Amino acid sequence: MSDEAFEAVVAAVRERVDPEADERERLRAVAEEVIDRAEAAAAALPVETDAVQVGSTARGTWLAGDRDVDVFVRFPPDLPREKLESYGLEVGREVLPDGHEEYAEHPYVVGEFDGFQVDLVPCYRVPDATEIQSAVDRTPFHTRYLDERLDEDLAAEVRAFKQFCKGIGVYGSDLRTRGLSGYLTELLVLAYGGFRETLEAAADWQPPVRLDPADHGRAGFDDPLVVIDPTDPERNVAAVTSATNVARLQHHARAFLADPTVERCVPDDPDPLSAAAVSEHVDRRSTTPVAVRFDAPDLVDDQLYPQLRKSLSGVADELDRRGFDVFRTATWAADGGGDGPDDTSDGDSAGDANPAVLLVELAVAERPRVERHEGPPVHVRQHAEGFYEKYDDEDAYGPFVDGDRYVVERDREFPTARAFLESDALLDVALGVHVEEALADGYDVLVGGEVAELAGEFGVELARYVEPSP
Amino acid sequence: MSDEAFEAVVAAVRERVDPEADERERLRAVAEEVIDRAEAAAAALPVETDAVQVGSTARGTWLAGDRDVDVFVRFPPDLPREKLESYGLEVGREVLPDGHEEYAEHPYVVGEFDGFQVDLVPCYRVPDATEIQSAVDRTPFHTRYLDERLDEDLAAEVRAFKQFCKGIGVYGSDLRTRGLSGYLTELLVLAYGGFRETLEAAADWQPPVRLDPADHGRAGFDDPLVVIDPTDPERNVAAVTSATNVARLQHHARAFLADPTVERCVPDDPDPLSAAAVSEHVDRRSTTPVAVRFDAPDLVDDQLYPQLRKSLSGVADELDRRGFDVFRTATWAADGGGDGPDDTSDGDSAGDANPAVLLVELAVAERPRVERHEGPPVHVRQHAEGFYEKYDDEDAYGPFVDGDRYVVERDREFPTARAFLESDALLDVALGVHVEEALADGYDVLVGGEVAELAGEFGVELARYVEPSP
Repeated sequence: MSDEAFEAVVAAVRERVDPEADERERLRAVAEEVIDRAEAAAAALPVETDAVQVGSTARGTWLAGDRDVDVFVRFPPDLPREKLESYGLEVGREVLPDGHEEYAEHPYVVGEFDGFQVDLVPCYRVPDATEIQSAVDRTPFHTRYLDERLDEDLAAEVRAFKQFCKGIGVYGSDLRTRGLSGYLTELLVLAYGGFRETLEAAADWQPPVRLDPADHGRAGFDDPLVVIDPTDPERNVAAVTSATNVARLQHHARAFLADPTVERCVPDDPDPLSAAAVSEHVDRRSTTPVAVRFDAPDLVDDQLYPQLRKSLSGVADELDRRGFDVFRTATWAADGGGDGPDDTSDGDSAGDANPAVLLVELAVAERPRVERHEGPPVHVRQHAEGFYEKYDDEDAYGPFVDGDRYVVERDREFPTARAFLESDALLDVALGVHVEEALADGYDVLVGGEVAELAGEFGVELARYVEPSP
Repeated sequence: MSDEAFEAVVAAVRERVDPEADERERLRAVAEEVIDRAEAAAAALPVETDAVQVGSTARGTWLAGDRDVDVFVRFPPDLPREKLESYGLEVGREVLPDGHEEYAEHPYVVGEFDGFQVDLVPCYRVPDATEIQSAVDRTPFHTRYLDERLDEDLAAEVRAFKQFCKGIGVYGSDLRTRGLSGYLTELLVLAYGGFRETLEAAADWQPPVRLDPADHGRAGFDDPLVVIDPTDPERNVAAVTSATNVARLQHHARAFLADPTVERCVPDDPDPLSAAAVSEHVDRRSTTPVAVRFDAPDLVDDQLYPQLRKSLSGVADELDRRGFDVFRTATWAADGGGDGPDDTSDGDSAGDANPAVLLVELAVAERPRVERHEGPPVHVRQHAEGFYEKYDDEDAYGPFVDGDRYVVERDREFPTARAFLESDALLDVALGVHVEEALADGYDVLVGGEVAELAGEFGVELARYVEPSP
């Protein structure tokens, strides 16, 4: 790989993501106007406030075309929480009369302003990021920290790295993606000194990787990537980043350094898989996929996906425990609110019920009618005698002695995965509480070729599933 | 359970196994005559010798109808081994002119004498059992030890316990049975004071059980039942007794104490299972038995069975490793020389090739075409890059990233247990060396209902297999 090839590709990527002067100017003007209006509206309140712009558009690290302006109105830290909320909404409604409320840790107003999407969020003006009362209180400290350190050259490096992360599918700290937040990409580029330097470092990472830009971290973290927040020594900015996404970043960093291409920096949504193609893959693999399809509970993605994953583990572990060997798993919910890699916000309103699915691809979906059941060691006399008497009268093979134990071969409760999934026993596994409620309302079980039915709702997800890449 | 019921059953058992006065007298006369002739024959030799009767017939613990007389001719311990062997055979041939040679640790002569089977075995007359030069040298010490301690009452208790062990299938220290030797039954009854006391003790055993009648054991043993040889502190008389047989003894001791019956003291050979009945069980269980049938190598049972078991483990472990879940296993060889629970000798000549079988009952006999293959962690850069490059070009699903590792789903080498068993890969598993040679000469693979073909050769073994009892 030559430096020239790398630089040429980076130049082409920057061509896409560096905002034009015109866009910068319009964004600056909108932010200024929103701040002025917010401060004016807040002036009528009986407390002292100020308004600050935060987020990537405040730090010059936004990607061309992003139209998000975040303005935080800061209130005194001794203001009761309910006052903060009512004052915050009052200011928000005045600045954005056509906006609507959303809810993260507390409610805030979102609305359009001159073609930009503006979030107007109340927070506490705490003296130090370690004294925050709500997660949003931390954001102004992040902006101040980066503002002092990111010049326009480094901001451009951040934009290239962000776009790279988007291209390879690891951008976004929401709990669906579990990738890198915008703030994390900024800290990494700042720590390593540039886009290329970040890739070179990541290519050689030996997780657990620990960075501590402010050299003040004390706590231990059990994550593959640890970046101590320079504004809060107790916080790992990469806490949400999964091991899989760390490994993906390493893989693509190496691949891009070896062969830089613009394509790697562009998200590549595959064509949805057709039902016929799904059937073909099922035949070719000769596994037995089983799917539980149900109405997704009405939750924001950041609540929904942890519940889906927990439920998927519960079902897969129980299938495995019952002898149905699990080959691979996945869980999907149809998009309810547009949460995805492009959206790194903490929350998002859910709409009407959307289909969700727990997919478990099984290597073994049928077991023999009999199962081996080991009893106590024969020498544990009381238990052993109880076991022997119980099964001696039952219609089972045995009891016989194997090693020091009694063993019987009795009828298996569920000889097929379908029988288990269609039974009430499904609701006894460890499920997310809202998923459990949703399943109690009813669900479909699809087995083998029947999963081709999912192509209508989850064609793209199925395409990614059957042709997995790093 | 009343004492009377117990005593009545024991009386009925003793009726069967206590030798009549007539039988005792004939046996005594034969032994005396053999000893006299052996000493006369040995008198011509240029070394000092004596002849002694050993074994259960010497100790009064033989069961009525046993017609084995063991006479050992003892030679000075400094006699070279080849001289011992030639002198021993010389004496043997003179006493038993129509006898034949057999071979344990060294050759000896076996022949009929007045309706009894006489073994005439040469050994060294060592001063102490700890200084033996050959395992047979120990036997006269056992006889002397027991002779001094077993009166006729205790001998009768031993006979009852021996018959009980025969009845429940744990009698015999040969490597096919791995049960209790005659000497071990004698030591147990001596230690506990009687048949009933032995059963009561066994019913409450908490393995590992350790008895040391001479209170001189020093070595540690890793066996479930440890009975230190009173003539040799380094030897566990129960070393060969398997955990399964210890547990069986415990089970039947409890059952007999709770409900004494003569039936439990009588070996119960089931009727051979018909091919049709085998098929019926295969259907009912819905497992997939697979069998490898071959010509048993020409070995005595004490060599053959350890090899069969090792080979069975090798095959079963490899099937399991390849994803074919093992449900239960067995290995059998058709009787070549009558070795069995009735025969506790160390060796036995094999005849012509007999069929042998390694039977593995599988819960899973087919796997999907694809198998998961985990690569190195992505962060182990050199290995990871090598893995990725290798599989990126192959016709496999992936490589993709799961957790910190690369994973591919590639074609499985053997999608069915049959394909594996019929391939040369079978010979690569850990097999007994003679079994490996036998398999190299050819073998049949039977799958599922095809194992019904085994009913012709192994009908009784199959009957025990499908209706297992303790």
